[in-house]
Amino acid sequence: MLKEMLLKVREKTPLIHNITNYVTVNDCANILLGCGASPIMADDIDEAAEITSLCGGLTINIGTLNQNTIPAMFVAGQKANELSHPVVLDPVGAGASKLRTETAFRLLKEVKFTVIRGNISEIKTIAMGRGTTKGVDADDADAVTGATLNQTVALAKNLSLETGAIIVITGAIDIVSDGKGAFCIFNGHPFMSKLTGTGCQLSCLIAAYLTANPESPLLATVGAVCAMGLCGEKAYERMTDLDGNASYRNYILDAVYRLSGDELESGAKYELR
Amino acid sequence: MLKEMLLKVREKTPLIHNITNYVTVNDCANILLGCGASPIMADDIDEAAEITSLCGGLTINIGTLNQNTIPAMFVAGQKANELSHPVVLDPVGAGASKLRTETAFRLLKEVKFTVIRGNISEIKTIAMGRGTTKGVDADDADAVTGATLNQTVALAKNLSLETGAIIVITGAIDIVSDGKGAFCIFNGHPFMSKLTGTGCQLSCLIAAYLTANPESPLLATVGAVCAMGLCGEKAYERMTDLDGNASYRNYILDAVYRLSGDELESGAKYELR
Amino acid sequence: MLKEMLLKVREKTPLIHNITNYVTVNDCANILLGCGASPIMADDIDEAAEITSLCGGLTINIGTLNQNTIPAMFVAGQKANELSHPVVLDPVGAGASKLRTETAFRLLKEVKFTVIRGNISEIKTIAMGRGTTKGVDADDADAVTGATLNQTVALAKNLSLETGAIIVITGAIDIVSDGKGAFCIFNGHPFMSKLTGTGCQLSCLIAAYLTANPESPLLATVGAVCAMGLCGEKAYERMTDLDGNASYRNYILDAVYRLSGDELESGAKYELR
Repeated sequence: MLKEMLLKVREKTPLIHNITNYVTVNDCANILLGCGASPIMADDIDEAAEITSLCGGLTINIGTLNQNTIPAMFVAGQKANELSHPVVLDPVGAGASKLRTETAFRLLKEVKFTVIRGNISEIKTIAMGRGTTKGVDADDADAVTGATLNQTVALAKNLSLETGAIIVITGAIDIVSDGKGAFCIFNGHPFMSKLTGTGCQLSCLIAAYLTANPESPLLATVGAVCAMGLCGEKAYERMTDLDGNASYRNYILDAVYRLSGDELESGAKYELR
Repeated sequence: MLKEMLLKVREKTPLIHNITNYVTVNDCANILLGCGASPIMADDIDEAAEITSLCGGLTINIGTLNQNTIPAMFVAGQKANELSHPVVLDPVGAGASKLRTETAFRLLKEVKFTVIRGNISEIKTIAMGRGTTKGVDADDADAVTGATLNQTVALAKNLSLETGAIIVITGAIDIVSDGKGAFCIFNGHPFMSKLTGTGCQLSCLIAAYLTANPESPLLATVGAVCAMGLCGEKAYERMTDLDGNASYRNYILDAVYRLSGDELESGAKYELR
Repeated sequence: MLKEMLLKVREKTPLIHNITNYVTVNDCANILLGCGASPIMADDIDEAAEITSLCGGLTINIGTLNQNTIPAMFVAGQKANELSHPVVLDPVGAGASKLRTETAFRLLKEVKFTVIRGNISEIKTIAMGRGTTKGVDADDADAVTGATLNQTVALAKNLSLETGAIIVITGAIDIVSDGKGAFCIFNGHPFMSKLTGTGCQLSCLIAAYLTANPESPLLATVGAVCAMGLCGEKAYERMTDLDGNASYRNYILDAVYRLSGDELESGAKYELR
């Protein structure tokens, strides 16, 4: 089931347009190449729509947004909607500044997103207009633990019903909901939080999976989230006593390149609520 | 012969000004340091000309171009021409958007380039106003194979005569032509296409080789292209069963740092047509 | 003594706002995560002050500065001053262009810096309005050797008295002065100069140490400088015959993640002048 999602990416090599931050953009490009897709980054308003047209899917990531790139996000998002391309929103740091929060809200109003992926603080901001965002990382007060899992699942379901988008909340347990059910995903490793950009990378990976599997957006999203978590686990197994977050960065990307459909199928750990 | 090209870079440590995209810019800086040159990145119009004056060579790469950086490309290019510094154009994604294609054409009109380096789709766009660009990667329809090699060599020669620049077309076989002859270069590894930025890196490497060898631009270019391909091969030999494109990225840059003049001389595989 | 500086970073996980260049920004984010801090990058004037308010410390790095990011530097710097947050200035390439030199001077006039960190050419530019900057790397003519050490210490002390900032001059010997005394630090490895961004990374590391140790800015700065140098040494020990500057990049960041308080305490090599 998830296996097919992965294999379709390798078969179709979807071209993904990314308007994203300059902090983790190289990793975003390499994870797309590694999973079998092809990246293009373009954030000037004079080419955004045209590049979107050329591609099969779009990621909009608001980290390091600015006055020049914000308008390009709208133009690209609307063009993707027009063409029925999947669009992923990564609301990096929503809640950390008015500019980010308002841009996220405006995007939600003017663009239809297939998936919205963020940490719990970012998603709370989007759902309730407030979170306890600590910069670009989830605040401890917001941590998804066993105790708060039911609440978080309910949050994801409601936000999905409200926005029409599949909601992905990543953290110790990842949640994926399309408003009807919710997948709770137990893959991943805590060390992923010591590395910048694992969230950004996952958003791009989701875009690739969605684009290659237009008939199954929910499964495609679950597949990408499980794949990323599984690669975080495999990467951690490779760590030596001298390795830290830089080597881990390489190991995760390497694992994405190496991950087989069978490994994804058998390694995915989730339950449906 | 090629050996001298490499050694001159290490001897002279040329300073290279790069106006380039934010996706692969860190790799560009590190390949320049690794080969023995020194990088500086500066893309604001208020300092572009001055930084160019301080340097020995210039790379203009139009990936993630925007309204602010485009004017800086012209100013820097013209200053470099004024000072007779070598200038390399990397027309990333030419053909993928009007903005990229037109910027490339305008640059060709207003700046004299020493070398133009792109994949076959980008070079076709420049030569004929059209290609079948698939984003920033060469389209399969454009692949340079044994069958199309003669045609592609002719394309390179003609474009060189037309522009006065040495033309470099990179792909399974790399072609370098100054309008008279053409070098067909057989170094490299297919896995290089699974990594973002090998083209951008090569363009910077060419700029370093040109700047250190002003009396032999053609040989300098051939030296840089062979060096990059050879490092792609050496990097691939280092790959383990767990490695993917992220480790490969490190191995290529490491190989550039380690490459000796003798290895380049004996490992270069090319023929003249 | 230095041990406590490091441990406080891990204990407090300070959030650091960085307005920095796009060349080395990913390394800056990862070194902050690796040392135990948390990074946020934001350079649009519409959110700069707000993001600064959310954070505990600020780094302003003028590499790849432009018309959009320069105003954000001032707004963020002034907000940080208002809140008594530590602010680090990294005057990358000061002396290389009028734009960089003048921006550095204007920043010094309008923002109070806790620490100014640069190579000797950059610091000379700031101190005397001139240096022999060769791009973003220190010029050989400016090298700090045993012979010129006393002079350089005097320069650092005077500039510290003049600006009220702790001055850090990095090179073969690093100097840290608060105007009264000066620490001469002998950690580090020459190979660090073959890698882009070790200076930028150190500036961020200093910001993290300062923010976690508000009562001891001088010791915090010395701790960060020794930590970076020590990690450069440890990373070099890990190098194999195939490794070059790319692997070295990973090894340094890994070492920062792994460095213990005891290792810092026992490995730091400095003398007070």
